[in-house]
Amino acid sequence: MTDAPHPLTIAEIRLTPILVADPPLLNTQGVHQPYTPRLIIELVTEGGVTGLGETYGDTGYLDLARPLAAALIGRRVTDLNGLPALAAGVCGDSPDATGDDAVHAGGLRGVRTPGKLRLSVLSGFEVACLDAWGRAAGLPVHALLGGKLRDRVEYGAYLFYRWAEHPGGRGERDDWGAALDPAGVVAQARRLADTYGFTSFKLKGGVFEPAREVAAVRALAAAFPGRPLRLDPNGAWSTATSRQVADELADVLEYLEDPVGGTARMAEVAAGTRVPLATNMCVTTFDEIAEAFRRRAVQVVLCDHHYWGGLRATRELAAVCRTFGVGLSMHSNTHLGISLAAMTQVAATVPNLHHACDTHYPWQTEDVLTERIAIRDGRVDVGDAPGLGVTLDPDRLAALHRRWLADDGGLRDRDDAAAMRRADPDWTVPAVPRW
Amino acid sequence: MTDAPHPLTIAEIRLTPILVADPPLLNTQGVHQPYTPRLIIELVTEGGVTGLGETYGDTGYLDLARPLAAALIGRRVTDLNGLPALAAGVCGDSPDATGDDAVHAGGLRGVRTPGKLRLSVLSGFEVACLDAWGRAAGLPVHALLGGKLRDRVEYGAYLFYRWAEHPGGRGERDDWGAALDPAGVVAQARRLADTYGFTSFKLKGGVFEPAREVAAVRALAAAFPGRPLRLDPNGAWSTATSRQVADELADVLEYLEDPVGGTARMAEVAAGTRVPLATNMCVTTFDEIAEAFRRRAVQVVLCDHHYWGGLRATRELAAVCRTFGVGLSMHSNTHLGISLAAMTQVAATVPNLHHACDTHYPWQTEDVLTERIAIRDGRVDVGDAPGLGVTLDPDRLAALHRRWLADDGGLRDRDDAAAMRRADPDWTVPAVPRW
Repeated sequence: MTDAPHPLTIAEIRLTPILVADPPLLNTQGVHQPYTPRLIIELVTEGGVTGLGETYGDTGYLDLARPLAAALIGRRVTDLNGLPALAAGVCGDSPDATGDDAVHAGGLRGVRTPGKLRLSVLSGFEVACLDAWGRAAGLPVHALLGGKLRDRVEYGAYLFYRWAEHPGGRGERDDWGAALDPAGVVAQARRLADTYGFTSFKLKGGVFEPAREVAAVRALAAAFPGRPLRLDPNGAWSTATSRQVADELADVLEYLEDPVGGTARMAEVAAGTRVPLATNMCVTTFDEIAEAFRRRAVQVVLCDHHYWGGLRATRELAAVCRTFGVGLSMHSNTHLGISLAAMTQVAATVPNLHHACDTHYPWQTEDVLTERIAIRDGRVDVGDAPGLGVTLDPDRLAALHRRWLADDGGLRDRDDAAAMRRADPDWTVPAVPRW
Repeated sequence: MTDAPHPLTIAEIRLTPILVADPPLLNTQGVHQPYTPRLIIELVTEGGVTGLGETYGDTGYLDLARPLAAALIGRRVTDLNGLPALAAGVCGDSPDATGDDAVHAGGLRGVRTPGKLRLSVLSGFEVACLDAWGRAAGLPVHALLGGKLRDRVEYGAYLFYRWAEHPGGRGERDDWGAALDPAGVVAQARRLADTYGFTSFKLKGGVFEPAREVAAVRALAAAFPGRPLRLDPNGAWSTATSRQVADELADVLEYLEDPVGGTARMAEVAAGTRVPLATNMCVTTFDEIAEAFRRRAVQVVLCDHHYWGGLRATRELAAVCRTFGVGLSMHSNTHLGISLAAMTQVAATVPNLHHACDTHYPWQTEDVLTERIAIRDGRVDVGDAPGLGVTLDPDRLAALHRRWLADDGGLRDRDDAAAMRRADPDWTVPAVPRW
């Protein structure tokens, strides 16, 4: 609806790319950069209300975000069903296409396609629209999604193998120290549990040989008996290794996440184990669901509103999973408080979210909010304040944007392998299966 | 949210059962009664706004609607995700159960269960909540569903074998005359097309032997060459008959609707024909989807917000169908303008609704609105007026309610077989397959 001026019409959109401090967390691709790019979206309505959104900030995302922002001016914040077609039009291909061209092969979210990038960009604007609408209406975002079903959303401790500091001492320091063996992982888990009250634990694997990661999970099981544990090697293993690890950890794993890549291999592993397989790599778009469900390749889909095209699409994914008896959990990538608020709002509305959500938030020491979102008892309160219920701190935003402007170290596009080469000049992304 | 007083809090709900005139339309169960029960819901907020809903009005539905209405007082109209659990609680069983007890076997919507009744009742309240919310916010219902994707929604002509009048001259008269042969069906189609601009035609079958109904569809194809045609015998046929009819009409049928009953038999028919099979009997709840899709039993699901639990659930069904490449159309039962407005609002928001929707509305000469909804060029405009955009006429409502109060003819529970016995005292619902 672009015909009549209306308080909910979008008048202005400000896009602010930032670089945010990130610790040296290890994964199968390499290591997190000292700073990671994010995009902060401020959407201002004709009524003078500002809505906030957050998504990936790499160049490829910014290149889509700018024309999409321009195309949104004059539309209403309520006009959300039209976003996919609008985004596809701006990007010059059909609304249904997810694209076949891998623009970044071997990423941590499966094959990256133009369609996936577009959905991630779109999700940031959808959240900003919902935030603005909610603020204007005096309603929390969860009400715009049909209302919360719970007052608190549970998150789990996201454990990483990590170094004490980035190669060459780059980036911001922290006092977590290294975690490279079972004792280090347990110590990290204990500190996260003590600080935030987490009672569920996920270890990012695919870093060391599987026996070493199995030992870490065993140590976690001993330290936190009966607690839900997860292991996620990001597709680094063979099917044989995956089955062996599943067998060895069957008594303690809540689920095993993406042990192998691709639907066919996931189905092969799933057929040989009682351990549920979860994924944020083999099923990351609606187009990938039918085959994966038909082949019983996955038992738990990790939703992520940045991947699936927003909070409403996340609810649709939940409905699809519910209909087919497939479990639902929530994925996270490096994110700030705007995204955590959005994740919490939608998670509160989904009846079939029966696992603790992932979040990187404890690893992010910087934010663009006036006040960090609190995690207590492993849970985030689902507020009833209008919109997302968070407030932007313009000074913090400006500071992180200045860091982005000043970057001459190639950090504007996250590249964990390049970051790893700072420590190991010969490093390349390992071929899979690595083990 | 029941804690704080708020303009969107539900203050009062008025339930008004009515009997509305219905012509002597024939189906495989019998004939429509001269009057059919509907329930009109008026939901008043603390802010003084009234939202309207409409659903089935038979005793079984009223018995659920009354306690649900009582339980809704003090809740907010935005608190929609909580409705299924609330309804289940009021009805004393679990929110996920659809129930196994057939309370009315052999109906036109598959096996009737307590769960299905509950969803139908719930849908009326959900629509009333959305109407109230929209009116209070100055937003059309489609905006609350994410915004319309089209400005007009297409409907098809719903053709019925019918008598000129009800047995014994009961009920209201009309000037349509009888339609009991191909010429009568074509004449009916032509008048509906001339009056409303329909360009898509569906014949309710299962009334006469299949050869006679095939001849009627052939006559329609000759009279309206190239137009989409549908035939719906409500599960009255054997698989062999279904395949034979599909073969005979493969060149003219848009789809064949529920030729047989049950997923297994639908799958058997589907495997033997290129004609898409549509259903509002074999897949009428989310629980029935997985098996039907896995067996490729249906190619088009007819959504109906009265069946699926509201407008938002209808959108979820659409997402499921989209994900699995299954088509979507829209079902209708005898309904008035409130439901037509609701159908139109949700249909406008669904990207993958590629068939003209069904509607009985042209057969309903009575309504409870101040102004009938216009169908022009086979389409209903998707208005941007707040809420559903319709206005209740209290005098008309009162008059139709007085008819309900005065009923001593057993019309408060629709029973097409009982109505048929007025003409044929020996009539019973035919066993299936009938042919």
